[in-house]
Amino acid sequence: MVIASSPQTKPLSDEQLRKMDAYWRACHYLAVGMIYLRENPLLKEPLKPEHVKHRLLGHWGASPALSFTYIHCNRLIKQYDLDMIFMAGPGHGAPGVLGPVYLEGTYSEIYPDKSLDERGMEKFFKQFSFPGHIGSHVTPETPGSIHEGGELGYSLSHAYGSILDNPDLITCCVVGDGEAETGPLATAWHSNKFINPIRDGAVLPVLNLNGYKIANPTILARISHEELEALFRGYGYTPYIVEGSDPAEMHQKMAATMELCINEIRGIQQECRNSGNPVRPRWPMIILRTPKGWTGPQEVDGHKVEGFWRAHQVPMGGMHSNPEHLRRLEEWMKSYRPEELFDENGTLIPELQELSPVGNRRMSANPQANGGLLRRELTMPDFKQYAIDIPEPGTVEFENTKVLGFLMRDIMRDNPNNFRLMGPDETASNRLQAVYEVTKKAWMADFYEEDLDGSELSPDGRVMEMLSEHTLQGWLEGYLLTGRHGLFHTYEAFAHVVDSMFNQHAKWLDICKNHVPWRRSVSSLNILLSSLVWRQDHNGFSHQDPGYVDLVTNKSPDVVRVYFPPDANCLLSVADHCFRSVDYINVIVSDKQKHLQFLPMDKAVEHCTKGIGIWDWASNDDCGTEPDIPDVVMASCGDIPTMESLAATAILREEFPYLKVRFVNVVDLFKLVSEGEHPHGLNDWDFNSLFTPDKPVIFNFHGYPWLIHKLVYRRSHQERIHVRGYKEEGNINTPLELAIRNQIDRFNLVIDVIDRVPKLGSAAAHVKERMKNKIIECLTYAFEEGKDIDEVVNWKWPYKGEDFCQ
Amino acid sequence: MVIASSPQTKPLSDEQLRKMDAYWRACHYLAVGMIYLRENPLLKEPLKPEHVKHRLLGHWGASPALSFTYIHCNRLIKQYDLDMIFMAGPGHGAPGVLGPVYLEGTYSEIYPDKSLDERGMEKFFKQFSFPGHIGSHVTPETPGSIHEGGELGYSLSHAYGSILDNPDLITCCVVGDGEAETGPLATAWHSNKFINPIRDGAVLPVLNLNGYKIANPTILARISHEELEALFRGYGYTPYIVEGSDPAEMHQKMAATMELCINEIRGIQQECRNSGNPVRPRWPMIILRTPKGWTGPQEVDGHKVEGFWRAHQVPMGGMHSNPEHLRRLEEWMKSYRPEELFDENGTLIPELQELSPVGNRRMSANPQANGGLLRRELTMPDFKQYAIDIPEPGTVEFENTKVLGFLMRDIMRDNPNNFRLMGPDETASNRLQAVYEVTKKAWMADFYEEDLDGSELSPDGRVMEMLSEHTLQGWLEGYLLTGRHGLFHTYEAFAHVVDSMFNQHAKWLDICKNHVPWRRSVSSLNILLSSLVWRQDHNGFSHQDPGYVDLVTNKSPDVVRVYFPPDANCLLSVADHCFRSVDYINVIVSDKQKHLQFLPMDKAVEHCTKGIGIWDWASNDDCGTEPDIPDVVMASCGDIPTMESLAATAILREEFPYLKVRFVNVVDLFKLVSEGEHPHGLNDWDFNSLFTPDKPVIFNFHGYPWLIHKLVYRRSHQERIHVRGYKEEGNINTPLELAIRNQIDRFNLVIDVIDRVPKLGSAAAHVKERMKNKIIECLTYAFEEGKDIDEVVNWKWPYKGEDFCQ
Repeated sequence: MVIASSPQTKPLSDEQLRKMDAYWRACHYLAVGMIYLRENPLLKEPLKPEHVKHRLLGHWGASPALSFTYIHCNRLIKQYDLDMIFMAGPGHGAPGVLGPVYLEGTYSEIYPDKSLDERGMEKFFKQFSFPGHIGSHVTPETPGSIHEGGELGYSLSHAYGSILDNPDLITCCVVGDGEAETGPLATAWHSNKFINPIRDGAVLPVLNLNGYKIANPTILARISHEELEALFRGYGYTPYIVEGSDPAEMHQKMAATMELCINEIRGIQQECRNSGNPVRPRWPMIILRTPKGWTGPQEVDGHKVEGFWRAHQVPMGGMHSNPEHLRRLEEWMKSYRPEELFDENGTLIPELQELSPVGNRRMSANPQANGGLLRRELTMPDFKQYAIDIPEPGTVEFENTKVLGFLMRDIMRDNPNNFRLMGPDETASNRLQAVYEVTKKAWMADFYEEDLDGSELSPDGRVMEMLSEHTLQGWLEGYLLTGRHGLFHTYEAFAHVVDSMFNQHAKWLDICKNHVPWRRSVSSLNILLSSLVWRQDHNGFSHQDPGYVDLVTNKSPDVVRVYFPPDANCLLSVADHCFRSVDYINVIVSDKQKHLQFLPMDKAVEHCTKGIGIWDWASNDDCGTEPDIPDVVMASCGDIPTMESLAATAILREEFPYLKVRFVNVVDLFKLVSEGEHPHGLNDWDFNSLFTPDKPVIFNFHGYPWLIHKLVYRRSHQERIHVRGYKEEGNINTPLELAIRNQIDRFNLVIDVIDRVPKLGSAAAHVKERMKNKIIECLTYAFEEGKDIDEVVNWKWPYKGEDFCQ
Repeated sequence: MVIASSPQTKPLSDEQLRKMDAYWRACHYLAVGMIYLRENPLLKEPLKPEHVKHRLLGHWGASPALSFTYIHCNRLIKQYDLDMIFMAGPGHGAPGVLGPVYLEGTYSEIYPDKSLDERGMEKFFKQFSFPGHIGSHVTPETPGSIHEGGELGYSLSHAYGSILDNPDLITCCVVGDGEAETGPLATAWHSNKFINPIRDGAVLPVLNLNGYKIANPTILARISHEELEALFRGYGYTPYIVEGSDPAEMHQKMAATMELCINEIRGIQQECRNSGNPVRPRWPMIILRTPKGWTGPQEVDGHKVEGFWRAHQVPMGGMHSNPEHLRRLEEWMKSYRPEELFDENGTLIPELQELSPVGNRRMSANPQANGGLLRRELTMPDFKQYAIDIPEPGTVEFENTKVLGFLMRDIMRDNPNNFRLMGPDETASNRLQAVYEVTKKAWMADFYEEDLDGSELSPDGRVMEMLSEHTLQGWLEGYLLTGRHGLFHTYEAFAHVVDSMFNQHAKWLDICKNHVPWRRSVSSLNILLSSLVWRQDHNGFSHQDPGYVDLVTNKSPDVVRVYFPPDANCLLSVADHCFRSVDYINVIVSDKQKHLQFLPMDKAVEHCTKGIGIWDWASNDDCGTEPDIPDVVMASCGDIPTMESLAATAILREEFPYLKVRFVNVVDLFKLVSEGEHPHGLNDWDFNSLFTPDKPVIFNFHGYPWLIHKLVYRRSHQERIHVRGYKEEGNINTPLELAIRNQIDRFNLVIDVIDRVPKLGSAAAHVKERMKNKIIECLTYAFEEGKDIDEVVNWKWPYKGEDFCQ
C-alpha cells in the first residue's frame, strides 16, 4: 500500500493546519448540533433537556470523515482553481456534508432563513431530520448533491457518469465501506476502463474504511493490507492509504495525499491531451481509514463508541431522562471550542471563512450539481425524415427499433459532447447499430487486432456497454444530473435488475420537481425496453417478464411516463418527444424484431400526440350511414399484441361481416387512468367516447393483464373490459405458440369476442370450433417443425383503403 | 499469476490424455448436434438441409470450456471419491453441460426416450432449444443443475449457499467473464469471508475468460495479468491460471491445476478440522483462459470466429440456403471423429464410459442438486409457547418481529445444521436478536478485541449478514435448493434490490413444480419484509416503498404467497406455517416497532388459518337481535393500517353509535382474488359474506392502493371498495404525519366513511369538520415538536368484551 508518499509529507504550515482543524471542528460542532439541538445553538446557556429534540436521528458515525474529505477538497480547489463536486456515498452521514455546505454560505443563499448567525443556526439545527423539514441523507434539498445515498450502491457509478464528456470536472466520491459490499458498487470500480483522459474528467474515489455498518464490521476493513491493496490494484487503481486518528497527523497526511492524487490526475490528463493519445492510466484512489464517529465520545455507559459500530447513528440518547448524557453532550459539543470558531452572532470567524472556495467554485454551488443550469437543448434532426413508407397499413415489415438507431445516429452526430447511449452489450442486438456510423463503443481496456473486425470499440466512443445494468443506469443518471442527455436500453425482463434504481431516481425527480424550486430541470431518464417478452420465446421462461412497467405505475404521476408505440413511425414520434422532455422517466417498450408497420408518419404523429385513438381503417362501426355504436371494441397496447388484435379483427370481418368492430390502440399507457390520477389520464367522457360506456372491450396487452385492470378500475363497467396479456406461461416456444399459451393470439381473441357478444348467435359455435382447431394445428406444427405456420408468419392486413367497411 | 505449478506438470498418461480428449470431443459433437440437428445424428448419411433445424439456437461459445471443466471434475471425483456438484454460470452454454450429462447416462435414466443410442441421440438433439421442449440454459429440466444461468450474476452466491453446513461438498462453479461484470457477481467473491472450513464445504470457482460477450470483449479479459492476479488475491483467493488453446497441453494443465486445487481444499479442511481451529485460508480458484467457441470453426465467410465474439451463439447459419455452410457443418462435426467415440448404435464406447463417475457420484445424479431428496423436516417448537398474552384486544404493545426472533432462536437451537438466517446487517435492527442466544453471525474475516462487546461474531455462526441483498438471497437459494431451510429478512423498500432474483426463483420453482416431476420439493424461500414504509417516516422518502408485493402478485399463483399478519401472535402462526411449507416463496410483511396486539393465540391461529375474517369485537353489525347487514365495512391489511382502521372504528362508534360497522382483517393477501386466479382465492359467495355484495368498504392497505383494486377487480361492485394506502407522499415525518399525508390515518378514514355512507346525514358534516381540525392539530404539533400527539401515540382500543356493541 502506498502511504502518502508525497514529496511534501507535511504540506500544511502550522497556521494552515490550525485553521483547517478549526474549520473541521466547526463542521463537527454543526453535525452534533444538527443531530441533537432545537434551541440554544451556541450553548450560550447551560444545556437543558428542552433544548434537545425529542427524536434523535441522524448518522454521526460517517459524518467526521465526510467533512474531513470535503474541506481537504476545498483546500485544493482554492489552490488549483479546480472544478470539483462532491459525492457522498454514505449519504446517511448528511451532517458531515451539510456542515461545510452551511459554512461556505451556499445554504443561507438558497434558504435565507438558515442564515449565518445564531438565529439561522438554530433553524439549521432544528430542521435536520425533523418532521416536515429535511432528511438525514444528502437529499435533493442539499445544495451540491446529486446523489442522495439513501439506498446504497450507486455513488461511484453516479460519480463516473458526472465526468463523462466533462473534461474539466473532478468528482470526489466518498465510498462507504458498507456500501462497498453491495454488488452495484463492487462492479462500479471497473468504470475506469471506460474513461478517456482526453474527453472525460476524473473521479477521485475516497474509500472510507471506518470499519463498521449498523451492527457489524465491514469486510474491507477486516482483510489484510496486502489483500486490500491487491484488490484496488486489481481494479486498476493506485491506492493511497491515509490511516490514523490523530487529527493533526491526519490533516497532514490527507493534504499530502490529496495533493498527490490531484497532481497525478492533472498529469495524466495533460499528458494524454498534449499527445492526443488516450491511454488507461492507473488512476489514483484514496483509502481513508478513520475511526467511526471520529472525535466523538470514546465510550458511553461503559461501551466503546468511537471507532466502533455503536457510533453508527446517535451515540447517546435519553437526553430528556438521563442528565449524565445531557452533560456529556454539552461537554462533547464544547470540546470543539465553538467560541474560537463562531463570533458572538454565531457567524464563522473571517479567518475560517477564507478557507472555503468562493462563488461557483464552492462544491455546494457548482452548477454541475444542479445540472439543469448547464443543460443545453439537443440539436434534434426532424424525426420524420426516418419515416418508414407505409403504402397501406399492415403490409410492410420492419424492425421497429432499427429506425430509432437512425434517429440516434444523427442525434449523436449533431450533439457530439452531450448525448450517450447505454446498454448491456446489446446495442446491435437491439438493432441500434446505426449509431456506429458516427461513434463507437467507449473502451479503454486493452485492444486486440481482431477488434478491427466489427467490434466497434474506441477510446472516443459514446456508446457505453458493460454487462452491468446497475453501472449503466448509474452512469446515465450521473450524466443527466450534470445536464446532459441519453438513453438506456435493456432487455425487458432484465430491467428488473435495476428496479430499485428506477424507484430511487423517480423519488429524486419527484422531490426536485415539487419541493426544490432552485433545482433546474434536467433531461428525462429515457429507458427503452426491447427484446420483449413476446419475442423471447426462444430464450425461454427466464427471459420473459414484462412487469417493469407495473413498478413504474407505482411512482408519482408527476414523473413517470410509459409508451407502447405500435410500430416504427410511432416509435420515432414517441422518441422525439421523450428526448425533448425534462424531469421524467420515460419508459418506451418496443421490440427489435421485424414487425408489421401500420401508420404513415403523419398519422403516427397524430396518433402518438393523442396517445390513444381509434384506427378507422381497422374499424367498421362507423362505416357509411351506420350509427356510431360498435358491438365490440378491440383494443391493443404494444407492438405484438396490436398485430394479433388486428389479425383477430380481420378474422371477425370474414366470419361475421355484420359485426361492428371498433379498433382502439393505446400508445400512452396513462391515458387509461382517470384524469385525477395522472396528468395524461382521460376524463370519463373521452374514455367512453373511445371504449363506449358499456360494450365489451377485448383488450390485448403487452404486459401482465392485471395492470390494465388496475389502471381502468374507476371506469364505468370496468368488468366488461376483458384483458389478455402475459400470464407466466412460457418455455422454449415459437412466437405464435407463446402467444397462444398466454391467449393473446388472434384465434383466442376471436373466441373471446364470441364468448362476449351474444348477438353472434349460434353460427359462432362453428367459428369457435374452427379457432380451436386452428390453435391445435399451430401448436402441433410448432412442436414438430420448430416454427410457425406460414399463414401466420406471413400474415398481412388484407384490406386496402375503404375495403374494411365494405 | 501462479501458473499450474503442480508437483506433476503432466499428470495424465498418454492413455489418459487420449481418452479424456476423446470424451471431450464426444461432448463437442453432442453440443454441435444439439444446436443444429434434428435428424441423422451420427451423420451416417451425408448431411442434408432437412436434417438441420429451422431455427438455430443455443450458445456454442461458452460450451467447450464448460464440458472441459466438467470432465476434469469427473477425473478427480473418481480419483478421490469426491462429493461434487457443478454450477454453470454461463448457463446459456447448456450444450456444454448437457453433453456430459447425457454421456454419463443420467439423462437417459430420467428421460428414457433420450436413450444412449442413435434413436435417443436424435431426440436428444432435436429437443434442444426446440419449441415445446427444453431451453438453451441449464434449466430445471437439467439433471444436476440448481442454477439456470438465464439471468446472469448469481452463480457464485448460489455455489456458496450450497456448501454452507455441507462439509463434504465441493461445488465447482464456472463463472463467465460476462457474468463477472455484473454487480451481484462482483461482490459474491467476498463470500469466502463467511466460509468456515470446518462446518462448511468448499467452492472451487473457475473463472472462464473466453474473452467475449455477445458483441464485446469482456473487461477481465482485457486487463493485464498483473491486475487480474491482484484482483483475485485482493478478493482473498489464490488464483491459478490455465491458459492456452492446444487441447493436449490444456488437458495436462487443467488436470494438474484442478488436482492442486482439490488437494489444497482438502488440506485446508483437514488442517482446520484436525485442529478444531477455523481460519480463513486463501482458497484456490482457477482462471481458465480459453478461446471462445474453442475447437469450432476458425473463420466463417472471411470473419474470425473461434476466439472472438462471433463464436458467442450459433457460429454459422443459413443451412437451408447456403450449401457451403452445410458442408462446413458436416466437416466440423466430423472433425470430432464420432466414429471413434460412438459405436454403431450411437452408444459411447465402453473405454470412454469408464471415465465418468458412477451412481450418485455423477454430478448430474448427485442428490445435492435435487435437494428435496436430502431435505429433512425442521424440528419445530410449538410456536404457541411464544404467544403474547392479550387480556383485551388492542391494549398491549409489543414489537411484532421480536417474537419471531424467539421462535427462530429455538428453531436454530433444535436444527443446528440446516437452518440459516440471512439479512443485510439488520438482524438486531429488525428485532430478531434472540437468535444470538444460540448462534452468532458467521464471520471469517479478521477479529478485533472490541468484537467481544456485542458484535456477536463467530466462525461458527449461522446468522449471515453482509451488505448485499444479492449475495444473501443467492446464498439462501443455494442453501434451499440443496435441501435446507432458512429465512431472508430485509428492509421493505430495499427488497426491490433483488426483485429480479425473486422473479427468477419463482420461475424456477414454477417449472420444477409443474413440469419436472423428478425434482423433489424443497423448502420455501421465506422472505420477511420489515422496517416497513409506515415506520420509515424518519428515514424519509427513499426508504419508503411497499411495492415488492406488487411484483410478487405477477408470478405464478402456484408458487407465491403473501402474508400481512396484523400482530405478533398472527406473525407466529404465519411463520410456523411458512417454515413447514415447500416450493413457495412466502413473503411476510411485518413491522419491527412496538405495535398494539390484537388477538390471543387461539384466535390468531384461527384467523390466520382462514387468512381473512371478521373481527367481532370490533364490529357492531351483528350485535344483539339486529340483522346482519352493516352500513360500512372497515377492512384492513397490514399491522399499521389495522391499528388506524380500528382507531377510526372507535371514533365512528363514539360519533355515530347507530352506524353499523363490520371490521374485516386480511392476513393472506390472495384471499382477495377470485378462486380461479389463485388457490387461496375466495369464491364470490364467501367474499360477499365478508364484504357484503354492495356496501361501501373502506379498505386500509399497507401498500400501494392500486394493488387491491387489481386483486378485487372481478368482485361484485368493486367500485364500492375504497382503498387507502401508500401513494408516494413522504419525507421526514412522524408516523402519524406520514399516515395523514397518505390518508391511511384514523381521521381520514372517518371522513372516507362519512363521504360514503349517506345515512349519516347532516350531523356528519360537523364530525368531518372536527376530523379535519384534528388533522391540522396533529400536523402542526408534529411540525413544531417533532413528534405525535400523546392522544394518538398512547391510543388503545377503548372497549372491552361486549362493550363495543352496547
